[in-house]
Amino acid sequence: MLLQRFLTSLRLKASIFPTLLSNLTSLNVEGLQRGTQVVIFRNTFTKVNRTSQLSFRGTLSTMSDDPEKTLAPLRAAVKEQGDLVRKLKAEAASEIDVKKAVTELKARKKILEDKELALTTDETFDRVKLEDTLKRRFFYDQSFAIYGGVSGLYDFGPVGCAIKANFINLWRSHFIIEEGMLEVDCSILTPHPVFKASGHVDRFADYMVKDVKTGECFRADHLVKAHLEKLMKDKKTTTEMKDEMNTVLALLDNYDQAGLAEVLKKYNVTSPLTNNDITEPVEFNLMFATQIGPAGNMPGFLRPETAQGIFVNFKRLLEFNQNRLPFAAAQIGQSFRNEISPRSGLLRVREFTQLEIEHFIDPSDKDHPKFEDVANLEVLLFSGSNQMSGKSAMKTTFGQAVAEGVINSQVLAYFMARTYLFLLKVGVHPDKCRFRQHLDNEMAHYACDCWDAETKTSYGWVEVVGCADRSCYDLNQHAQHSKVPLVAVKTLKEPKVIDVVEVLANKGAVGKKFKKDAKILMTHFAEMTKEAADTFDKNLQGKDEISLDVNGKTFTLAKDMVTVKRYQKTVHAEDLTPSVIEPSFGLGRIMYSLLEHNFRVREGDEQRTYFTLPQAIAPYKCSVLPLSNNKEFDPFVKQLVRAFSDEGVSHTVDSSSVSIGRRYARTDEIGIPYGITVDFDTIKEPHTATLRERDSLEQIRAPLTELPGIVKDLVGGKQSWSDVLKKFPLFQGQEAS
Amino acid sequence: MLLQRFLTSLRLKASIFPTLLSNLTSLNVEGLQRGTQVVIFRNTFTKVNRTSQLSFRGTLSTMSDDPEKTLAPLRAAVKEQGDLVRKLKAEAASEIDVKKAVTELKARKKILEDKELALTTDETFDRVKLEDTLKRRFFYDQSFAIYGGVSGLYDFGPVGCAIKANFINLWRSHFIIEEGMLEVDCSILTPHPVFKASGHVDRFADYMVKDVKTGECFRADHLVKAHLEKLMKDKKTTTEMKDEMNTVLALLDNYDQAGLAEVLKKYNVTSPLTNNDITEPVEFNLMFATQIGPAGNMPGFLRPETAQGIFVNFKRLLEFNQNRLPFAAAQIGQSFRNEISPRSGLLRVREFTQLEIEHFIDPSDKDHPKFEDVANLEVLLFSGSNQMSGKSAMKTTFGQAVAEGVINSQVLAYFMARTYLFLLKVGVHPDKCRFRQHLDNEMAHYACDCWDAETKTSYGWVEVVGCADRSCYDLNQHAQHSKVPLVAVKTLKEPKVIDVVEVLANKGAVGKKFKKDAKILMTHFAEMTKEAADTFDKNLQGKDEISLDVNGKTFTLAKDMVTVKRYQKTVHAEDLTPSVIEPSFGLGRIMYSLLEHNFRVREGDEQRTYFTLPQAIAPYKCSVLPLSNNKEFDPFVKQLVRAFSDEGVSHTVDSSSVSIGRRYARTDEIGIPYGITVDFDTIKEPHTATLRERDSLEQIRAPLTELPGIVKDLVGGKQSWSDVLKKFPLFQGQEAS
Repeated sequence: MLLQRFLTSLRLKASIFPTLLSNLTSLNVEGLQRGTQVVIFRNTFTKVNRTSQLSFRGTLSTMSDDPEKTLAPLRAAVKEQGDLVRKLKAEAASEIDVKKAVTELKARKKILEDKELALTTDETFDRVKLEDTLKRRFFYDQSFAIYGGVSGLYDFGPVGCAIKANFINLWRSHFIIEEGMLEVDCSILTPHPVFKASGHVDRFADYMVKDVKTGECFRADHLVKAHLEKLMKDKKTTTEMKDEMNTVLALLDNYDQAGLAEVLKKYNVTSPLTNNDITEPVEFNLMFATQIGPAGNMPGFLRPETAQGIFVNFKRLLEFNQNRLPFAAAQIGQSFRNEISPRSGLLRVREFTQLEIEHFIDPSDKDHPKFEDVANLEVLLFSGSNQMSGKSAMKTTFGQAVAEGVINSQVLAYFMARTYLFLLKVGVHPDKCRFRQHLDNEMAHYACDCWDAETKTSYGWVEVVGCADRSCYDLNQHAQHSKVPLVAVKTLKEPKVIDVVEVLANKGAVGKKFKKDAKILMTHFAEMTKEAADTFDKNLQGKDEISLDVNGKTFTLAKDMVTVKRYQKTVHAEDLTPSVIEPSFGLGRIMYSLLEHNFRVREGDEQRTYFTLPQAIAPYKCSVLPLSNNKEFDPFVKQLVRAFSDEGVSHTVDSSSVSIGRRYARTDEIGIPYGITVDFDTIKEPHTATLRERDSLEQIRAPLTELPGIVKDLVGGKQSWSDVLKKFPLFQGQEAS
Repeated sequence: MLLQRFLTSLRLKASIFPTLLSNLTSLNVEGLQRGTQVVIFRNTFTKVNRTSQLSFRGTLSTMSDDPEKTLAPLRAAVKEQGDLVRKLKAEAASEIDVKKAVTELKARKKILEDKELALTTDETFDRVKLEDTLKRRFFYDQSFAIYGGVSGLYDFGPVGCAIKANFINLWRSHFIIEEGMLEVDCSILTPHPVFKASGHVDRFADYMVKDVKTGECFRADHLVKAHLEKLMKDKKTTTEMKDEMNTVLALLDNYDQAGLAEVLKKYNVTSPLTNNDITEPVEFNLMFATQIGPAGNMPGFLRPETAQGIFVNFKRLLEFNQNRLPFAAAQIGQSFRNEISPRSGLLRVREFTQLEIEHFIDPSDKDHPKFEDVANLEVLLFSGSNQMSGKSAMKTTFGQAVAEGVINSQVLAYFMARTYLFLLKVGVHPDKCRFRQHLDNEMAHYACDCWDAETKTSYGWVEVVGCADRSCYDLNQHAQHSKVPLVAVKTLKEPKVIDVVEVLANKGAVGKKFKKDAKILMTHFAEMTKEAADTFDKNLQGKDEISLDVNGKTFTLAKDMVTVKRYQKTVHAEDLTPSVIEPSFGLGRIMYSLLEHNFRVREGDEQRTYFTLPQAIAPYKCSVLPLSNNKEFDPFVKQLVRAFSDEGVSHTVDSSSVSIGRRYARTDEIGIPYGITVDFDTIKEPHTATLRERDSLEQIRAPLTELPGIVKDLVGGKQSWSDVLKKFPLFQGQEAS
């Protein structure tokens, strides 16, 4: 009832959140002010109030003791619809019928997934608290805040930068160094023809409408969807009208500008916030456009992905690899997408760090020499088939998944496995990580198989890495647009004998007759395929002369101006366009996930939070804390700092005048795994100091000179905390003091 | 004579290079083709011919045995003009007279510098060979080459990326970790108001004209300069006309659009290549413009420098540093400048990696606690005073330079010294590195002192790091434009008693009379300075009411509606806007310099080049080479690779089928310091292999299991090559085989 009153006081209709309300078990309203905004997501409620520090939170209980009981009917509904889709496809039903069925399938899948999430949510996690920590300790924060801020742009502070640098170094070592990949670092500015070829100029766009009065922008398809879903719930809407609306929804992705405009008009769609009229839909490309150079004749874009930089360098990279396949290239850098409505913190932004790999292979050989190393690795796979049948993700091994044909090739599975190992290394929780296969209708038309690594967060399942077999689409596109062949030469196991038909022009006679146009003709003959030469030869038979149209010019050739040669040739190699396996990482999304997965509250003290960050990711490895600002501690602090610098162990000193307990809390709050305190015993001979472990809060006391080495070995994985405890007795610390 | 004939054959007028020709001592023409282009720079000649591999090169001898004899008259000419400038300034001469004298001073300095460079050029350095290596081994190359390329954009390949990553890691450890700086990583996309405040919107621009027929763009001032200099050499030009032209040149930087247009018209300036007419000059801002978000109401730019991201985060960073000064923030990232004519490879590009530090200090305390650590470091300083007197850069210590007032503060000198140490660490040659002080007229109007670290390259002296004391300009600008105070609180050593005058309004009476406008009045009083309150009080004396204009509204107040309070207050702290010391690094320029400084040719073999890169910068630390493709070598190669991976030592394997000598040459060519060869003795027990050092070509043979540790210690600086030679005997190697 308290929530009811609270919502009413905010003039929100509580009735629109019936499920949420009926399931609310605990509620704690610490404060309330006029103008407070309430954000409700899935099963937690968070008050957003920029002007005060009040906090309001509600959590939901689970609906039943056995979640599967609750989920069973939802699973059945998905399966029923999945079977229908399969049946329609098998019967080669009309496109529109399949699309309608798929739309309904998606809707049922969404209901099932939302319920699954609601039933398994970690009720101890508090996003408001996490976000407060991230902002207050400057992990990252909105860019240009003193100028009012810009949506979708974030600045990383010292803690975020250190985590980011560790992340990138780990990625470079895990992928580039360990797998011998070729790294490139390409321009962000990219001229128009490159993204014309890649398809981004034509297809990387959404239709947008504007509120005619406020100028606010919306995605047209989102508006139509929300509007029709509302209408369909209206009791006045007839079954016939509902059917028609269902058809519109099913076709929503297929409308062109005129089609969308008609739909918007027909259903009288208005601005959702103000009810004002909206403009006609216009196509809005999500790339940031600019002009390169002063002349105004070179339109360009900021790259929306780093991948294309690798494709346009394919020739150089192949040569660098001594013309041998397979090889992988990788790039780490910024990408830019002009999102219409950025949201969810680091999850949907306008500028982000991408880490992409393009592994080029002979499409006829998709095995991987190191697959055995990962075949027994267990992982949660959410296959297309399970999705269609209303099942959950299943634990299996990569080896089994390949053997059963669930994952399409060893090489794709190998990169998924390496991706999974990387995610675990940086701190993603294995129980909150799965690979979800794209359904046929989700996949780009050129892709063979595609799996997203997803992490479970308070925003639901989030795609953090895409692993796709993109076939030879990109190289073909660039070869076609740039007219530069992008192929590798494959040495054949067995030499092959092939038939050759060539048209050879009599250079002298052709030159004499056609003068400067002769070159066009010569090029034409040189580029002729076997089939074209064959046809030419046939057309020539029994004639004295022959006419040819080349480049819009007509050439009339006397028979003796050309010779047709036919012979056989043994070839030992042939050209092939490699296929490409692409794992594509978004740094921000992974970083947000690992922060959420590692955020903890100390038992018994709600105010003390910490991060159980893996040592390799932690922003600093050790903090050095003098017990008080007594000058006698200074030389020992300096000695430690110098030793850590020499050993290359990142560290931080907190010599502020607050209590040692408060300072420990501060280093825990940013996830520093170890802390050394210089105290009055340090001054005495033999000089010793205490070392504290973040997660267990255990402390030991050891000689000062040994401590940096101990921390280095701990962080480098050469010994564990329990090894250290065997050498040095537990110390009952200063923390309480 | 050979050169004369050569140039004549190319239809170049040899007479335009009289000095070059008269000094040519050796000439080697290996080949010659029609259409060959000859590029002549300073004192080397290089033929650029894209269609053949021919090479043509000429070098100059020095003009006299004692360079100083040649330079003496040039030095005297600079000094004479420098003295004139000083005299004019002392006499407070007119601005135009000073500017004219400075223009002439600059011209004389340029002649002196060019001659100095010509006399000290390294004749063994061959830029064509360097550039060929950089391109062929994919250190970096022009972006989007398959689409014809874009000027000023470069892609880094695997070797360049590895060097770049090492460079950034070294920088981060040398500055951020060792000096405890706060790193930030801010958005590249930046909304308009930020660069309006910083001055970039208004001043980061050049005037540009276009060839009306070809559309080619030129900087207007460059055209005027080249045109007038040509006219002034013409014998028909009278002394009067020359004087007038000199005035135009002196004022060139000061003309606005109309002024420049007038000059272009008056002297009939045309397109330098085609002689076509040119357009009116237009201002061309060097920032890349774009739109942020879909609404079209948020114009933005790609940042032209990373510094502003630090300034707009000043408040957060100060708080992160627990509100204490001094502290330094640093940022590493991409910056973008839409150069009108990019040139000289990595030296003038449109997209580049910047590494910037902003060290915030109390302007009344410019000492540095660690200055002693660097006071005795020797360096080449080219002070403003030396520049004005025609002297060279002088070797001195940072301590002496500060003591003599040559460098304006300890803190600036400290950062210059740390910068110098960093440059040496990455491989810049100490003899080819100097710090040049900006002359008064070169410095930004807000800067106190400014020194550029310059490297000597085949392009002349190149600015690679700017070290400036920017005072409090940037923070003041952003505070003013954002209305957010950007200040630190300084605790006073002695509390201070200050007089306070405050106007307090009678809230009830004011509210009753002015209703909702009362707030305007209350804010006005609250924000009143002491002086304004004092004036108000005086005006009020002896009146019954008083009128006030606030925000365009007139308020008439009865005397009893306000009370003026006067009292004294003891303050223990006061606000201050910090000054900032900014070292700003351009990665590409430094990287190019160190590549040039470390490029070598093996004695006796012109074709074998190598880089003497410092181990920390070398792209890989060790190469592993099986002597042949004998399968028996494989397990030993794998064992080494695994050991290097475990030790975190970057390495590369070259198992291609070319000779071992050729493969050594290949690893030398990209500067890998060590190479291990697995040969037939490796297969025998005890397993051993050879280790070779790049610069000396010396080899030893050691047990296979010990080799990775030896390399790790060598690279980590824990032992030197001569230490290794003491433990293992020299081995006469496979290289010759």
